[in-house]
Amino acid sequence: MEPIQDFSSLVSRLRALKERKRVVVVCPNDPHTEYVIIRSLREGFADFLLVADTPHLLNAEYIRQQYPDHVKVFEASSPDVAAQEGVLLVREGHADVLMKGIINTDNLLRAVLNKEHGLLPKGNVLSHITVAQIPTYNKLLFFSDAAVIPSPTLAHLDAMIRYNVDVCRRMGIESPRVALIHCTEKVNEKFPFTLDYVTLKERAEAGEYGPMFLDGPMDAKTACDSHSGEVKGISSPVVGHADMVIFPNIIAANTFYKTLSLFGDANMAGMLQGTTAPVVVPSRADSGNSKFYSLAFACVCSDTKK
Amino acid sequence: MEPIQDFSSLVSRLRALKERKRVVVVCPNDPHTEYVIIRSLREGFADFLLVADTPHLLNAEYIRQQYPDHVKVFEASSPDVAAQEGVLLVREGHADVLMKGIINTDNLLRAVLNKEHGLLPKGNVLSHITVAQIPTYNKLLFFSDAAVIPSPTLAHLDAMIRYNVDVCRRMGIESPRVALIHCTEKVNEKFPFTLDYVTLKERAEAGEYGPMFLDGPMDAKTACDSHSGEVKGISSPVVGHADMVIFPNIIAANTFYKTLSLFGDANMAGMLQGTTAPVVVPSRADSGNSKFYSLAFACVCSDTKK
Repeated sequence: MEPIQDFSSLVSRLRALKERKRVVVVCPNDPHTEYVIIRSLREGFADFLLVADTPHLLNAEYIRQQYPDHVKVFEASSPDVAAQEGVLLVREGHADVLMKGIINTDNLLRAVLNKEHGLLPKGNVLSHITVAQIPTYNKLLFFSDAAVIPSPTLAHLDAMIRYNVDVCRRMGIESPRVALIHCTEKVNEKFPFTLDYVTLKERAEAGEYGPMFLDGPMDAKTACDSHSGEVKGISSPVVGHADMVIFPNIIAANTFYKTLSLFGDANMAGMLQGTTAPVVVPSRADSGNSKFYSLAFACVCSDTKK
Repeated sequence: MEPIQDFSSLVSRLRALKERKRVVVVCPNDPHTEYVIIRSLREGFADFLLVADTPHLLNAEYIRQQYPDHVKVFEASSPDVAAQEGVLLVREGHADVLMKGIINTDNLLRAVLNKEHGLLPKGNVLSHITVAQIPTYNKLLFFSDAAVIPSPTLAHLDAMIRYNVDVCRRMGIESPRVALIHCTEKVNEKFPFTLDYVTLKERAEAGEYGPMFLDGPMDAKTACDSHSGEVKGISSPVVGHADMVIFPNIIAANTFYKTLSLFGDANMAGMLQGTTAPVVVPSRADSGNSKFYSLAFACVCSDTKK
């Protein structure tokens, strides 16, 4: 499989599948979410299960009338009930991806994380992956965690790497290059996460993550710019060529996200991982385009369950 | 005074001064440092005191021969002695700015931070300020701390704000707009620095920092993009118009630096603060251009002492 190197190829890949992906949307009644649903229906890669709370049922019905063979509508008495019903549809095997509409993220996550009726298997880490399409980088760049885990422990970092390596392979990157981010190349016990990095490198070298390259600590520029590596006299399969960067705290990852978006002219997509199906949780400030590509990204990375 | 809004104006401002700035350079014998010295001499805004270790004395002599009225050369038996002599020249009032040449940063800092013979007054916080010239932002953007303080305490944050506000005023920004960075707008005791932010806002409102605007927590995009503020329904004199952003940890600030530089096509300059004179400590990977503007920035922000 050729690697997917830009967002438009996400859609081509989905259109080449034999079966459409099945997407549950909780509270689909805001302009951006409706745009994402209609655009996906036009592209023809997804069927939708729209769970709307009663006052907003008509918006969902209007979409169903346009695409009656590919949209089902479910009524819920409140947004919280809509979240529970959406999660149940995934649990019962009726859908491959869960997407947030206008419901508050915390309310959706309450249903997703419910210990008895949710989507996170016991012991799994919930984390977020972003994929960035940057005009001045020659491939897609994946990173974690800009949204969920404040200060990842070794177990969190290990889980992120496993999830993200799996995502890379689904995107056609057989041996992803993973950079562990710090502000220097020095391992230093004053920054305990750099000691975790040493452990993660040992695990990678022992083959625990399958075919891949992992290196760090290094800074974000060294990870993505081979000239920086040359100046510093360091080289590895990762330096200058990262497919994925892992940050030691959420502020750094979020700053990377926001800076790429605002000053790097990048397009971003993202989803939650660790759940039995990808969960798409766009932010208020995301563009309609970004929300659409987030859904396409989640669809490419989902299993089709029956 | 008109605000300085780009790097070339730094040099114009310096050329308009009646007196040249006096700069000590410790171990000035590498190509980038020589380039910075020669370019500054050509622009005519600085005189240089070059402290070279014996094996490299000839390089410094060669510069002095070209500009005999504006360059003095001092011989030192080793780089560490050169650092001590450079610091002494500043302490004795012979120079306004200290600049690192090819000496290791740790070795220079040992002399700068020496309790008896150094440049950091007792009780002062040492911090780093970066100024970025970003093609897609309509003014210079100042930020801390990408280089020195790993996890700033309230006292550190307070010092950074005081230093950086002073720098902004020297750059002609009378009422700087300061954003305190997080990944959301929520104050949350799980992120203790957001509680410090509340205290800092109270101090700003009480006038402790003079005329300025301070707001946060907010993310890096909200600080610099008014559209993001509109989408989130928040507005303040800071949102979308930050002159300065303050980060809660060094990894986030360093990631901001590296991402702006690599993907935002930004030029960067920086210096250490808290010392009795600015200290310019360029990184190996900085361009000659960046090192030159760092020196110009430090010269604009220095006092001329006699």
